[in-house]
Amino acid sequence: MHQDAMTEHISADVVIVGAGPVGLFAVFELGLLDIRAHVVDILDRPGGQCAELYPEKPIYDIPALPVVTGQQLTDNLMEQIRPFQPTFHFSEMITSLDHLPDGRFRLKTDGGETFETKVVVIAAGGGSFQPKRPPIPGVEAFDGKSVHYAVRKMEAFRAQRVTILGGGDSALDWTINLAQVAARVTLIHRRDAFRAAPASVNKMRALVEADVVDLAIGQVTELIGENGVLEAVKVKRDDGSTHEIATDALLPFFGLTMKLGPIADWGLALHENLVPVDTEKFETTTPGIFAIGDINTYPGKLKLILSGFHEAALMAQAAARRIDPERRVVFQYTTSSTSLQKKLGVA
Amino acid sequence: MHQDAMTEHISADVVIVGAGPVGLFAVFELGLLDIRAHVVDILDRPGGQCAELYPEKPIYDIPALPVVTGQQLTDNLMEQIRPFQPTFHFSEMITSLDHLPDGRFRLKTDGGETFETKVVVIAAGGGSFQPKRPPIPGVEAFDGKSVHYAVRKMEAFRAQRVTILGGGDSALDWTINLAQVAARVTLIHRRDAFRAAPASVNKMRALVEADVVDLAIGQVTELIGENGVLEAVKVKRDDGSTHEIATDALLPFFGLTMKLGPIADWGLALHENLVPVDTEKFETTTPGIFAIGDINTYPGKLKLILSGFHEAALMAQAAARRIDPERRVVFQYTTSSTSLQKKLGVA
Repeated sequence: MHQDAMTEHISADVVIVGAGPVGLFAVFELGLLDIRAHVVDILDRPGGQCAELYPEKPIYDIPALPVVTGQQLTDNLMEQIRPFQPTFHFSEMITSLDHLPDGRFRLKTDGGETFETKVVVIAAGGGSFQPKRPPIPGVEAFDGKSVHYAVRKMEAFRAQRVTILGGGDSALDWTINLAQVAARVTLIHRRDAFRAAPASVNKMRALVEADVVDLAIGQVTELIGENGVLEAVKVKRDDGSTHEIATDALLPFFGLTMKLGPIADWGLALHENLVPVDTEKFETTTPGIFAIGDINTYPGKLKLILSGFHEAALMAQAAARRIDPERRVVFQYTTSSTSLQKKLGVA
Repeated sequence: MHQDAMTEHISADVVIVGAGPVGLFAVFELGLLDIRAHVVDILDRPGGQCAELYPEKPIYDIPALPVVTGQQLTDNLMEQIRPFQPTFHFSEMITSLDHLPDGRFRLKTDGGETFETKVVVIAAGGGSFQPKRPPIPGVEAFDGKSVHYAVRKMEAFRAQRVTILGGGDSALDWTINLAQVAARVTLIHRRDAFRAAPASVNKMRALVEADVVDLAIGQVTELIGENGVLEAVKVKRDDGSTHEIATDALLPFFGLTMKLGPIADWGLALHENLVPVDTEKFETTTPGIFAIGDINTYPGKLKLILSGFHEAALMAQAAARRIDPERRVVFQYTTSSTSLQKKLGVA
């Protein structure tokens, strides 16, 4: 990674938005053409939907892999791209894209990073996985201040009164873990039954029994506080009665939802939340910005991982010409080209 | 296979021309849509170029398979398509394609089979592997009568005087094997050194030593005989002298060459021996005839196995609509569709 001391940005040839299977394979196809990629993903690890939604579920339609799980597919791709040493930027979302006068793009992330790059490859699948907001009026005003949708550092909650919402694994796991550092943890769920792993449910119930954790059945209807600083949440029970729970930090775990996110604002002539591309280069209406995988659309498009792989290969040829217009891109095969085999570390 | 007793043809929805990786994966994509395929290949086994030219050579650019040989790739694909029970017609070449009045196609093979099919999928790679003819004037007149480029049945050569040309594995293997049934086998090679496996060379030399086989060093310059019936071959030695070898059957094994073959005569508006297709259906200029893999061309085309796989997927959707225009093709995922999983035999 080249850190430019003057402007504090990362100078790149290519930034790939999304580390799902298609984004990962784009690293491979670009790598064969000597192009090193930066890869940004809102998740904290590679694999995208595959690793997030169905890590253990078998996939049957990847050619020559009669059955493979989402996690295995991701692991195989990570092994395949290892020779090309991409730089990953996980748990970050690209929030803005600006055009620079020299034809490059400036990308900024919510993690405070800035890229200046010749080529942008959008491989963002269905968009960004974003936490679902709880249906509480005015919750936005507390977002990022007293209301958090992920725990980056447990220490941030030390000695705080933490209220956790939800009945799944994330809610239960954080109830159990934060009980160690928080002043008090209250778990609120709309009914006294949980989707989380039975072991976690048992552990939570034991903590409630031992008076370390509070469990409240009901729904939060109101946040009490000002200027983003939470004081309490109001909980409505099934019988209609309400009570308040003193709270410094509220952690709703209502699952993830797929949103197109900031890409919608990049001027790409979207069609039903998809990015139209040509089928020669898989380039968007903005030269230099490519879109591959589930996020693009063209006549005949099928949302197959396989199709994203093909799109990555054709995109790479066009990206190489944009990155270095003087260069003659010679198409070679890994089976017969010693030069490609050297790049792959096998010759 | 449905054999129609009246007309002696095979009625099919789809005939795939070529059993290379792309033809095999087309079986899979069609199978997911309940379409059973017939597959015709001039070779005697599946795998096409991959299995014929580089069975042991590693391929590095199949997505999520960091390294795989041509044979492994073929084996994996054969396993993947097993649930869809394609009918293979190996060692046969489609020699003619005719349009039937009802919009279907009649295909004939050099093995005497006739197909009547709604859809033709050309997945013929670089074309057909065809044996190289030896550079002997007038050899064509003996082709298929006294000159043979493959041994289908050893019995056909019983008690014959067989002359074999070449220095590779095929030439040596058939010299050794046919010595068991032929009246006499003569091996002719231009020099006394052989490319074949050393064990085969040793075995051949032992047979020569035991006076079971003759070895002649030189080149055949003339075929002697009439009306396709061979009597002798004239051999020119390095010193310019010649001699004749009495011969009933000549078997030249000078390797295979890739030829587009009869496809050139199907009216497909070829471009530099490639078949132009659209990128939505990968259909040729003739509706109902599709072309996928290395044999097709379109803007951006890369001759990657991976691209042929993608093309097979999009082709299958269009083929399904042509086979049954009334049918609503619903696109489903193998990961989530119980109906697809049943077809695959895993649910």
